[in-house]
Amino acid sequence: MPLPNRRIVLASRPAGEPRPENFRLEEAAAPRPAEGQALLRTRYLSLDPYMRGRMNAGPSYAPPVEVGQVMEGGAVSEVVESRAPELHPGDLVLAYTGWQEYAAADAAGLRKLDPGLAPVTTALGVLGMPGMTAYTGLLNIGQPKPGETVVVAAASGAVGSVVGQIARIRDCRAVGIAGGPEKCRFVRGELGFDACLDHRSPDFAAELKAACPRGIDVYFENVGGSVFQTVLPLLNFFARVPVCGLIAHYNATRLPEGPDRVPSLMSAILIKRLTFRGFIVTDFAAQQPDFLRDVSTWLREGRIKYREDIVEGLENAPEALIGLLRGRNFGKLLVKVS
Amino acid sequence: MPLPNRRIVLASRPAGEPRPENFRLEEAAAPRPAEGQALLRTRYLSLDPYMRGRMNAGPSYAPPVEVGQVMEGGAVSEVVESRAPELHPGDLVLAYTGWQEYAAADAAGLRKLDPGLAPVTTALGVLGMPGMTAYTGLLNIGQPKPGETVVVAAASGAVGSVVGQIARIRDCRAVGIAGGPEKCRFVRGELGFDACLDHRSPDFAAELKAACPRGIDVYFENVGGSVFQTVLPLLNFFARVPVCGLIAHYNATRLPEGPDRVPSLMSAILIKRLTFRGFIVTDFAAQQPDFLRDVSTWLREGRIKYREDIVEGLENAPEALIGLLRGRNFGKLLVKVS
Repeated sequence: MPLPNRRIVLASRPAGEPRPENFRLEEAAAPRPAEGQALLRTRYLSLDPYMRGRMNAGPSYAPPVEVGQVMEGGAVSEVVESRAPELHPGDLVLAYTGWQEYAAADAAGLRKLDPGLAPVTTALGVLGMPGMTAYTGLLNIGQPKPGETVVVAAASGAVGSVVGQIARIRDCRAVGIAGGPEKCRFVRGELGFDACLDHRSPDFAAELKAACPRGIDVYFENVGGSVFQTVLPLLNFFARVPVCGLIAHYNATRLPEGPDRVPSLMSAILIKRLTFRGFIVTDFAAQQPDFLRDVSTWLREGRIKYREDIVEGLENAPEALIGLLRGRNFGKLLVKVS
Repeated sequence: MPLPNRRIVLASRPAGEPRPENFRLEEAAAPRPAEGQALLRTRYLSLDPYMRGRMNAGPSYAPPVEVGQVMEGGAVSEVVESRAPELHPGDLVLAYTGWQEYAAADAAGLRKLDPGLAPVTTALGVLGMPGMTAYTGLLNIGQPKPGETVVVAAASGAVGSVVGQIARIRDCRAVGIAGGPEKCRFVRGELGFDACLDHRSPDFAAELKAACPRGIDVYFENVGGSVFQTVLPLLNFFARVPVCGLIAHYNATRLPEGPDRVPSLMSAILIKRLTFRGFIVTDFAAQQPDFLRDVSTWLREGRIKYREDIVEGLENAPEALIGLLRGRNFGKLLVKVS
């Protein structure tokens, strides 16, 4: 008798901010693994800002989730049954099986995890896609040099926290931006950034300027919106802007009111000889061994710390993603599924 | 008795488009050269879009011309009197002595020109600052690969014409944009671009799309404005945009009406992993020998052609610059001073 499989599908496409009714919890029969596959039981599901893009119909760098399809996402899962020689029941793997309790997956696409090396949830955070996004974007595009100032928003989050800590390791001044005093205290006190500003403060622009007395050499862009407009005048000549995400825009249904600031942005790029470059982590897939080696080492040495925000129960994933897009999470957001 | 020196000074700063009264023709005594200097008589003065920026008070990548000061600019000049051993009367030099008939200049800052190698006016155009701007920006930032599509506006101008011809030499598809059918015919017929579109055509967007059947891999940005907005949706994944100039904005007194398109631009950078990078030619000063070697060779071989638009008389320089900013020139704009 097949196992019951609870899963969350895209019920409808959101207009603006996603709402609970855009998701639907379903129960189906768990699949049976084919030859070369394993049946996986999801332990932890990763929730990440990019998922908002997948809910839209429009073309992006990946095809959208279709209405009625299971929401996509990375997971740490346990092998329940294996029809592949390299996997055995009880093994823990990194899989891209989405918002559901069970899935059958090709063994070739799974990465086996060693719980003795690091807590397995790190494969979804600091040692996973978000950590590698931070590492590759900062080092390849940001190219921080000792003594330079690196600014990153969502600084207590999965990507931003790693960006700032690597900047410190590279002898840069690391300035974070986060939402609220508690996150800022954590970014300074626990993560060791040189400064962290609350973008909700009425004096945010003045505070950011004061925290960057030599201007900004690298702005790791993961939010957009008004934070970006505040950063732009502080960018130094020859500054680099890795464009990693724009969470402030993901729920937008139309462009902001005018004036059209594109000419200001282009003038700044021209006069200050700025570099803006968009990327996604898979563009640097070949650097995964370097990333794992360096960040594992820094983790062991205590030079990189991380924080997880774990929500219990698959049924709470929709609310958790809605909260993520509002900045409600505090640390890498995970759903404990089983 | 000192020679009389006619010169054009900045009379007042323009608000928007420069007007004749922002300039003033003065007569003063020509300077006497000091030890190590030469007295130069201007033969040709170069007029270039960057000069509009120098007329503003605001900070840019170079200090502004002060009100009452001689307008800046590059010139081909003849040595009239020399107090430096390496220069002799009759020598022709490249100098940065501005809008005037005579100037004294340090011999160390002058480049001696050999009229036997190429017409001396080319030192202000295809073998000078505009040509090197095209060469360095296209090759360093654009990085065109064989078979790719390179688009450049102001394609009959001093920079654009060289960008497209180098793109052809690099086995790319070169698509120009210019103002009016006569310029477009020249760009296709004489310069050998694969296509050239008139940005004033009511069907410009459709025509540009049709001329770029495989999208755009390199957009050499020297105009901005509506041309840029038309190009943006056609950029391919991983396209490169060297930001060299924004002539469509130089006379603007305020930002265009909304909506604010910055979020669209940033989303395109993110999703398509675009690179935007501003530059000015001096950023690549070390590449001057490569530039002179390559472009001289291509000129001799007939693989690069150029066109000059020569205005007679220093007193006509203000109207000529005003016309340049309106796209009235046809080819590299020069003023024959003597």
